[in-house]
Amino acid sequence: MPELRRDPLSHRWVIIATERAMRPSDFRVENPKPIEGNICPFCPGNEHLTPPEILAIRPAPAERNKPGWTLRVIPNKYPALRIEGELGRKGYGIYDKMNGIGAHEVIIETSTHKQELPDYSQTQTEMILRAYRDRLADLKNDQRFKYMLAFKNHGARAGATLEHSHSQLIAMPVTPKRVAEELDYCREYYGYKDRCLLCDIISQEQLLEERLVLVEENMVAIMPYASRFPFEVHILPRRHMHDYCKISDREISSLAYVLKSVLKKIRQALGDPSYNYILHTSPVTHPRPGHPEQWGTIEMDYHWHIEIIPRLTRIAGFEWGTGFYINPVTPENAAKFLRDENVDV
Amino acid sequence: MPELRRDPLSHRWVIIATERAMRPSDFRVENPKPIEGNICPFCPGNEHLTPPEILAIRPAPAERNKPGWTLRVIPNKYPALRIEGELGRKGYGIYDKMNGIGAHEVIIETSTHKQELPDYSQTQTEMILRAYRDRLADLKNDQRFKYMLAFKNHGARAGATLEHSHSQLIAMPVTPKRVAEELDYCREYYGYKDRCLLCDIISQEQLLEERLVLVEENMVAIMPYASRFPFEVHILPRRHMHDYCKISDREISSLAYVLKSVLKKIRQALGDPSYNYILHTSPVTHPRPGHPEQWGTIEMDYHWHIEIIPRLTRIAGFEWGTGFYINPVTPENAAKFLRDENVDV
Repeated sequence: MPELRRDPLSHRWVIIATERAMRPSDFRVENPKPIEGNICPFCPGNEHLTPPEILAIRPAPAERNKPGWTLRVIPNKYPALRIEGELGRKGYGIYDKMNGIGAHEVIIETSTHKQELPDYSQTQTEMILRAYRDRLADLKNDQRFKYMLAFKNHGARAGATLEHSHSQLIAMPVTPKRVAEELDYCREYYGYKDRCLLCDIISQEQLLEERLVLVEENMVAIMPYASRFPFEVHILPRRHMHDYCKISDREISSLAYVLKSVLKKIRQALGDPSYNYILHTSPVTHPRPGHPEQWGTIEMDYHWHIEIIPRLTRIAGFEWGTGFYINPVTPENAAKFLRDENVDV
Repeated sequence: MPELRRDPLSHRWVIIATERAMRPSDFRVENPKPIEGNICPFCPGNEHLTPPEILAIRPAPAERNKPGWTLRVIPNKYPALRIEGELGRKGYGIYDKMNGIGAHEVIIETSTHKQELPDYSQTQTEMILRAYRDRLADLKNDQRFKYMLAFKNHGARAGATLEHSHSQLIAMPVTPKRVAEELDYCREYYGYKDRCLLCDIISQEQLLEERLVLVEENMVAIMPYASRFPFEVHILPRRHMHDYCKISDREISSLAYVLKSVLKKIRQALGDPSYNYILHTSPVTHPRPGHPEQWGTIEMDYHWHIEIIPRLTRIAGFEWGTGFYINPVTPENAAKFLRDENVDV
């Protein structure tokens, strides 16, 4: 069973994977291996190489766990957290730990090996974004989970270990620190202004235009004012919405268009860099006995968004150790650069 | 002038380098370049290629900015922050910014190109650690600075852009978020226990021994209970000490031995990975008009330490976007592995 351990200096929970434990000698420095294998477990025909599917989209009637699908959701074969068991909160001297309970799912986004998100059809992209919504809504029913993280790693530098395009969902019994901070600061701002911080940001960005990448009927893509990384892009719904599960089909369609466009612009402008994107949505808010409602105003004060972080190789260094970032490109320059990049979507 | 901008969602300050601004097209993906240049500005004889020295150790009397030194501190030729000017705190709509005022110095650790820290003599290592102390103490006199960060990047993956071994010092007008959090949690713990959190951690680690890497008369090297990264090592003074500037020469000697040993063990066990180390010490505490004393109990509640983070290539992914870390090696296994690695120091 993996362990969740809390660092007393930062109050950050870390998953210590004790089971799929790699030997320390596995970590000798080596050049990144090509991530292409001989047999791809995500390709049609190889369904027996993955755990049984949780959800699949099959345009025509067909057998489960057999080819014919256009999208497939499966449990991760090597999960970071385990679905079975109790949370088992424990002290360990001055430290805190609990069992690594959670869910870890893989969304196989396409049946075509080597097809990437910017190349999907509009319909295919919408299907993926609906799968996020549906899986998040389903996982909410498990009372042990506090937060669900949907994310995608593209390219070896971003942590992708299989080439076939996929994204992931992790449900966990704690709220990740970066999201918890956002929730706190959004609530604080709401308490002060009676307005949503991210609605105010959208409104200022639309007024100034200098950090806009793309505006569409329902969605907006901007570079954050204090971008940590060059070409960091955030996509937000223009109407106030705290929970991604509340997205309408019309908004899914708009999000698919904007996400595809931004990723296509990044690929065209920067030469297919590795990237991560992460969906920040509101945490699960089922009341827990003995805990007063922690997220009292969350429906008003939080606003979901997707963060896209290209992993550009020339950026590295002390930032990850200190929480202090140096960004060598102004978001204004980077936004103009991406705005000017014409793409067919 | 670079800008410091505060992200409203995380309250994190980011340096936006507007001056040494790279063109967006500089960021196209490329393979990492070899960091070896033709002429090394840090080698003896090339002193004219760097700004004039701030401090240098010359065993025999010799001219400034000429060869004959064994250690040299210079201003960074391409500083992340600028020394001249006022802080200029300003609002920008809902955002906050200030001028990128600060100091950015380079400690050239050795006159020998290609010599690395684990290979320095004990005397040379002590000299470097004393240079940190002396430069930190000097920079404290500038009333504009709130925090000084001493750190080292080794290897291209850790952000080193010059091969000749060096470390860096950045003085800044804000406290980096990761350090500010530690200060807060240490103060909170002290308020609750009337004891220093890190003294308690040292005491538990010495009792359990499972995460110890090395114990010496004055210093201890441990792997944190909730290590974010495989083989993350923290070095702490065994006596309570909040400010690195208070380190004695005897303790410098112990620290030099432990730092060299740990880095040598890492190199031998893991094949010379890139790494960062960062000194976390207490912030500058000069009282500022209009601000009540922010760090009231800091002498009792904080405890300086050095964090060493090897940049192992097989670790990457969504962690940097979410603040949620998955560590595939238990610190207990990693600590045993490094303990068993015999090195001559």
